[in-house]
Amino acid sequence: MSTYDDQSAVTVLGLGPMGRALAGAFLDAGLRTTVWNRTPGRDAEPVARGALPAGSAEEAVAASGLVVICVVNYDASDAVLRQPAVADALAGRTLVNLTADTPARARDTAGWAAGHGIRYLDGAIMTPTTSIGTPEAVFLHSGPAEVYRAHKPALDALGGTHTHLGEDVGRAAAYDVALLDVFWTAMAGYAHALAVARAEGVTGRELAPFAQGIAAILPPLFEEFAGDADDGTYSGELNPITSAVSSMAHIVEASEAHGIEASVMRAVEGQARRVIALGHGTDGFIRVTDLLSRRRR
Amino acid sequence: MSTYDDQSAVTVLGLGPMGRALAGAFLDAGLRTTVWNRTPGRDAEPVARGALPAGSAEEAVAASGLVVICVVNYDASDAVLRQPAVADALAGRTLVNLTADTPARARDTAGWAAGHGIRYLDGAIMTPTTSIGTPEAVFLHSGPAEVYRAHKPALDALGGTHTHLGEDVGRAAAYDVALLDVFWTAMAGYAHALAVARAEGVTGRELAPFAQGIAAILPPLFEEFAGDADDGTYSGELNPITSAVSSMAHIVEASEAHGIEASVMRAVEGQARRVIALGHGTDGFIRVTDLLSRRRR
Repeated sequence: MSTYDDQSAVTVLGLGPMGRALAGAFLDAGLRTTVWNRTPGRDAEPVARGALPAGSAEEAVAASGLVVICVVNYDASDAVLRQPAVADALAGRTLVNLTADTPARARDTAGWAAGHGIRYLDGAIMTPTTSIGTPEAVFLHSGPAEVYRAHKPALDALGGTHTHLGEDVGRAAAYDVALLDVFWTAMAGYAHALAVARAEGVTGRELAPFAQGIAAILPPLFEEFAGDADDGTYSGELNPITSAVSSMAHIVEASEAHGIEASVMRAVEGQARRVIALGHGTDGFIRVTDLLSRRRR
Repeated sequence: MSTYDDQSAVTVLGLGPMGRALAGAFLDAGLRTTVWNRTPGRDAEPVARGALPAGSAEEAVAASGLVVICVVNYDASDAVLRQPAVADALAGRTLVNLTADTPARARDTAGWAAGHGIRYLDGAIMTPTTSIGTPEAVFLHSGPAEVYRAHKPALDALGGTHTHLGEDVGRAAAYDVALLDVFWTAMAGYAHALAVARAEGVTGRELAPFAQGIAAILPPLFEEFAGDADDGTYSGELNPITSAVSSMAHIVEASEAHGIEASVMRAVEGQARRVIALGHGTDGFIRVTDLLSRRRR
């Protein structure tokens, strides 16, 4: 049996928290799983669960037809992959890069892979480590559809939903960057809100149920505002950006009154005020998207 | 029957989108509802639905034992309320101020109300205009518990859930500011994400379902991080702040590569990098709360 086509063998390169979770899910699904990490000693947990240790990246790659890499960024994945012995071992195999980075880096890596006869998919994991192997996991993939189809059964071992976004290999990273933008900006708002609440004598546990209520109103607004941004219809009838700016000013004032810096909200307020200055004060806040895109309607 | 104690009569001051929604909910519940707006001509819709128009703020106030005001901010509510004729008319009545502003302004208004013999509650509306009168509406109140209890039946006409946060009259505004901080920061992240996605050829409607997935993972994280912030236990075992900073750098790089300014994410990244510089790189991102609070653990 050639390891090139063996759908029951997979290699995981990178054994940080996410790499270990990926290896664990492959093992739970009964796949022969080979693991390797640049810094030695990280494979104890997966090996105890039945993974096969490898002495080098090229040895790990040679063990399976499907190689999954998940490290901190593409500088790190390049350091592992772009060595002659590893590139040679990868030739004819499929590499799925679940490392997060920019669309440009994904496209660059796809070009490198093509030059070395490596079948390449670029992916992104949109849910926390703890979701891997459960129905909650969300994976995005981009690259050749036939490569995706060929390895879908093995990828399904990771649980959750897998979406192939198209042949443009940068597309998964584009979604990833945009979605992490939403995530980390929201988290920054929450960290700041916890600081403001604390200064007002409100604990995190007191605030949290109401913050969860705020999260609950986001999905329908995300859908509505996506349509507004696509169509350029920014009705602010129920919540004009002038009213949003008033809220933002309260947040800045209340936080700075407690000596809590408000650089994030000041930046947000500045964007909203520029929209108003451009004559769109009766539009909704999401018109900021056009301002950032420098698209004038 | 004295209008002071009449639980079936209510006055709404301010007829912007939210004021009109409040008046509509009171009318739907069968309360005798008097309405007034500083700029004339805004009462056509509520009056057509059965509201009683008033010729002046003092006339509107005199019509009911419960007066609800909801305008753009406390500068606007002061302009309505802090006139001798209006203050005189309010004496002995209950004023519920659902206008959003800072805790300091709420406390100042409570002091003014006490000086004029006005029973005063300060409130905040945490859900959109369209939620009013539905089970989805969320109202927060603070001030004397007995005043809250006395008017709870009329407030229930507004639908949704009402929570009395305590006697400190600034508390509703403190929650309001903190929760709007979460909301508007998240919205700014989404507006920016839509711009980045657009530059990558991804439409809002394509991104939205996945952005809704991001919103769905926030509530359990909000609960976990509230506990972390309260207890000072910022475990970054599964997602250290060094990894968060890597994501943030990708977002800044991918957006600026398209000429999209990234001032908000640059501010977020700066906070995270300061946490790392203070020696907490293995902690989770939410340790930013301590940085902002200037609390050193």
